[in-house]
Amino acid sequence: MREKKVEHKIACLLAGGFEDSEFRIPYDRLRAAGHTVDIIGKEKGETLKGYKGKETVKATRSIDDVRPDDYEGLLIPGGHSPDQLRADPRFVRFVADFNASERPLAAVCHGPQLLMAAGLVQGRTLTAWTTVQSDLRQMGAKVLDQPVVVDRNWITSRKPDDLEAFSARFIDELREWEQRGQKPATAQAIPAQPGS
Amino acid sequence: MREKKVEHKIACLLAGGFEDSEFRIPYDRLRAAGHTVDIIGKEKGETLKGYKGKETVKATRSIDDVRPDDYEGLLIPGGHSPDQLRADPRFVRFVADFNASERPLAAVCHGPQLLMAAGLVQGRTLTAWTTVQSDLRQMGAKVLDQPVVVDRNWITSRKPDDLEAFSARFIDELREWEQRGQKPATAQAIPAQPGS
Repeated sequence: MREKKVEHKIACLLAGGFEDSEFRIPYDRLRAAGHTVDIIGKEKGETLKGYKGKETVKATRSIDDVRPDDYEGLLIPGGHSPDQLRADPRFVRFVADFNASERPLAAVCHGPQLLMAAGLVQGRTLTAWTTVQSDLRQMGAKVLDQPVVVDRNWITSRKPDDLEAFSARFIDELREWEQRGQKPATAQAIPAQPGS
Repeated sequence: MREKKVEHKIACLLAGGFEDSEFRIPYDRLRAAGHTVDIIGKEKGETLKGYKGKETVKATRSIDDVRPDDYEGLLIPGGHSPDQLRADPRFVRFVADFNASERPLAAVCHGPQLLMAAGLVQGRTLTAWTTVQSDLRQMGAKVLDQPVVVDRNWITSRKPDDLEAFSARFIDELREWEQRGQKPATAQAIPAQPGS
């Protein structure tokens, strides 16, 4: 029997005003690599538009219906989306809880604003959009101005020009995470019930 | 001879994507109080649109043609504008240099992101949009979640609901600044020449 390609489930946290390509390119590359990507918004089915008007997508899941343990990877696109999401404690908690599992977490451009809101950046090494870099330094993070920075489970990038390298590295890190024999997501377990 | 009403010159730093009312309300209230407001953008004459589509204004000055000493007050509206402006070192330098004069500086919502980029917030007391409040705390600022916070020369507010109180307090602080006999702006002096 031939070895079956292992797919991972990826959570993509998204609000309206995302940077169009920072959703589209990682999303397409992850799917092309065999992964499943859930687009997680405030409400299931809500329409989310990129601020450049090039992308319109629907949230496939509500943040209320997912658990960090359901996913092997987390993707946070940039634009105005991360600042919208971090105003909502459900998304901040999701990021903090997911990060605690040390599974691969990829954030680009303004995406690290969610890591900031979750109080996770002090002492970490990462990159971000140029204006966010300044914030990160003042919060005690080490910032590198380069296309992709990997620090433990974090993969971070700066801007749309970095997206191919960012996506490829995220996919590599998912593969390496799996090869290290980490505990898979509990995607097949009973999903959380509303109110539970 | 009756005492003439003293007008002050106010610098408003603005880029596209500003929160519409956070420009409009302070701008109108300042002008109604007799002040002159220059809308300072990257280019003189550039069209700047609010992200809610309610306001479209033209920059009356380019950042290259103004000096902090030309103004008695500084206004920084919120929305996406401050993050645009702080990517441009000319605006960051203008804010830092203006602040050094201890003249009244009013920032609302995401406006304090320019104060963050200028490295000014550590040890200061202020408020801002809820998501920016978290950033400020992690940078060593004291954050109060109230409609208006005054700390030395800074007047800060959180959101559109705070705008009437914010504008009134800014106008009060300009009057008090004048009554303390502070050095007026050099608005009547020879303006800086491009390249000088």
